Amino acid sequence: MEAPLVTLEDIRAAAGRLQGSVFRTPLVPYAPADPGRPLWLKAESLQPTGAFKLRGAFNKIAAVLDQAKRSGIVTHSSGNHARAVAWVARELGLRAVVVMPDAAPVEKVEAVRALGAEVVIVPPERRDTEAERLAGEEGYVLVPPYDDPAIIAGQGTAGLEIMEDLPDLDVVLVPVSGGGLISGVATAVKSLRPEVQVVGVEPELAGDAAESLRSGRLVAWDVGRTYRTMADGLRTTSVGRLPWEHIRRYVDDILLVSEEEIGAASRALVADARLVAEPSGAVTLAAYLNRRDSLPPQGRYVAVVSGGSVSPRLLARLLTGDGTEP
Amino acid sequence: MEAPLVTLEDIRAAAGRLQGSVFRTPLVPYAPADPGRPLWLKAESLQPTGAFKLRGAFNKIAAVLDQAKRSGIVTHSSGNHARAVAWVARELGLRAVVVMPDAAPVEKVEAVRALGAEVVIVPPERRDTEAERLAGEEGYVLVPPYDDPAIIAGQGTAGLEIMEDLPDLDVVLVPVSGGGLISGVATAVKSLRPEVQVVGVEPELAGDAAESLRSGRLVAWDVGRTYRTMADGLRTTSVGRLPWEHIRRYVDDILLVSEEEIGAASRALVADARLVAEPSGAVTLAAYLNRRDSLPPQGRYVAVVSGGSVSPRLLARLLTGDGTEP
Repeated sequence: MEAPLVTLEDIRAAAGRLQGSVFRTPLVPYAPADPGRPLWLKAESLQPTGAFKLRGAFNKIAAVLDQAKRSGIVTHSSGNHARAVAWVARELGLRAVVVMPDAAPVEKVEAVRALGAEVVIVPPERRDTEAERLAGEEGYVLVPPYDDPAIIAGQGTAGLEIMEDLPDLDVVLVPVSGGGLISGVATAVKSLRPEVQVVGVEPELAGDAAESLRSGRLVAWDVGRTYRTMADGLRTTSVGRLPWEHIRRYVDDILLVSEEEIGAASRALVADARLVAEPSGAVTLAAYLNRRDSLPPQGRYVAVVSGGSVSPRLLARLLTGDGTEP
Repeated sequence: MEAPLVTLEDIRAAAGRLQGSVFRTPLVPYAPADPGRPLWLKAESLQPTGAFKLRGAFNKIAAVLDQAKRSGIVTHSSGNHARAVAWVARELGLRAVVVMPDAAPVEKVEAVRALGAEVVIVPPERRDTEAERLAGEEGYVLVPPYDDPAIIAGQGTAGLEIMEDLPDLDVVLVPVSGGGLISGVATAVKSLRPEVQVVGVEPELAGDAAESLRSGRLVAWDVGRTYRTMADGLRTTSVGRLPWEHIRRYVDDILLVSEEEIGAASRALVADARLVAEPSGAVTLAAYLNRRDSLPPQGRYVAVVSGGSVSPRLLARLLTGDGTEP
């Protein structure tokens, strides 16, 4: 039996829950856009935790709040979801345990600890199982990073805001990792205006979702392969099962960008839009700038800049053009 | 005879003119603010030209449009006003000449040229006179950077937006250079809610306005003195005469911050708010973080981050803590 897809109504209900707690991020005009392809950046990097993940985490935790208050919550994440869950737990006074892969940037680990959550470090391939073990054995409520309808509905509020602020857009570019963000955004956008193109973007070095969409079946890459990209938020080895159902229903295409293109797009965001993006958040601008042949030649574009949790050290390297070595 | 002050009605009229052409910047929550002093950043760095200057330039040029179309326009600026005037000239199809000091960062000069304006480079002490000469001898319409009611009214639209987005704020921190921005913001804020504290911020190395406010008379520092600060947008040697009338009427205090504090605030904006600010734009956060004793201990704060036109090279130096040497 297939799980039902998230609906526009689910996303609208999430938007109501998030109001006042999650920042309504702006669409920032990108001045050097091509004249025929004006571009706006949905700056999720400006969320208090540095990424869109706050939307899904808040919506999910709000849905299980009574049990979460009794038992505490557990999650697994390479960084941004972890920080979002820890932030929501602090806001709501909940106990939180976060399982993080040992390859997560130290800044992301420290940011989670600073919010008062307990961090458990494991090898990347054990992050899911360890969180599930803690939920099963210790009774914590599991807050999954993407494979969950409440998470997808929460992330979809970004899409709802895009449609409110720029109802006549033509193309929206969204980073793809576990698939929660693009599932929610695509559901909101396509439900309101089916003719808008929803295009995912992945690093070439973690192109599992593009391969899935092309082949028509959900494929997984191994951890050793996806962990080569500097876009540490996009190293998930496969989109989730529920996101996959949304992606094959709603997403028009998934494009791939190189590490060099990601680095150059990070620099362009700083120099031309005064936005700090992590490499994972810059993939959409990289696609806009470098995949013209795969995108409509005319139209109003939105690129979701999904996060900005980059260490000052890595950003300095990216700015001096020395950023392709992670 | 004293010139009349700009009014709230002037600023509202400017806001009407700017709509659709100038970006309505967000108030970005600053997550690590003190619990009793929540802080929002008015991110003027996200304007298409990288700074608030677009507001005044657009409003002024719109007011003299017929003549500007016949004769072209001329201005003088260390960078951000120049870029704003060049941008508006391109949007409206006007000829523009920009007089810039030879100490202006090369990126700012190039940004102006890239917009199609003609650039004339002079020593800092000649920038005003050269622009006036071009206006007098060649017939260009002069677009002054700050000492003009239409410029002040345009900059004041930032204050109007702050009051719309956070009507119950208590303190607003604004950088001071020629005084156009703080004059406009203070007029909007004090006209709507006189109890809000309006506090200017300057680098210690260019503290002419603080000295003026303290002494009750308009003082000027010499160029050699103000050009020591890395905040290249705040090196004006004196506030303008018309801004001075607004400042002494409406501004509660002007605080000074050190070069080290400016550098640290620039880093904090990147790390904690994912915003790129130039040193001039970071002085307000520097005051919030380091001048607690001179500011209300409780209340809702807004810091205007006036611009983000920083070279990737300087930003990389600021990020690695090596940024106090300009």
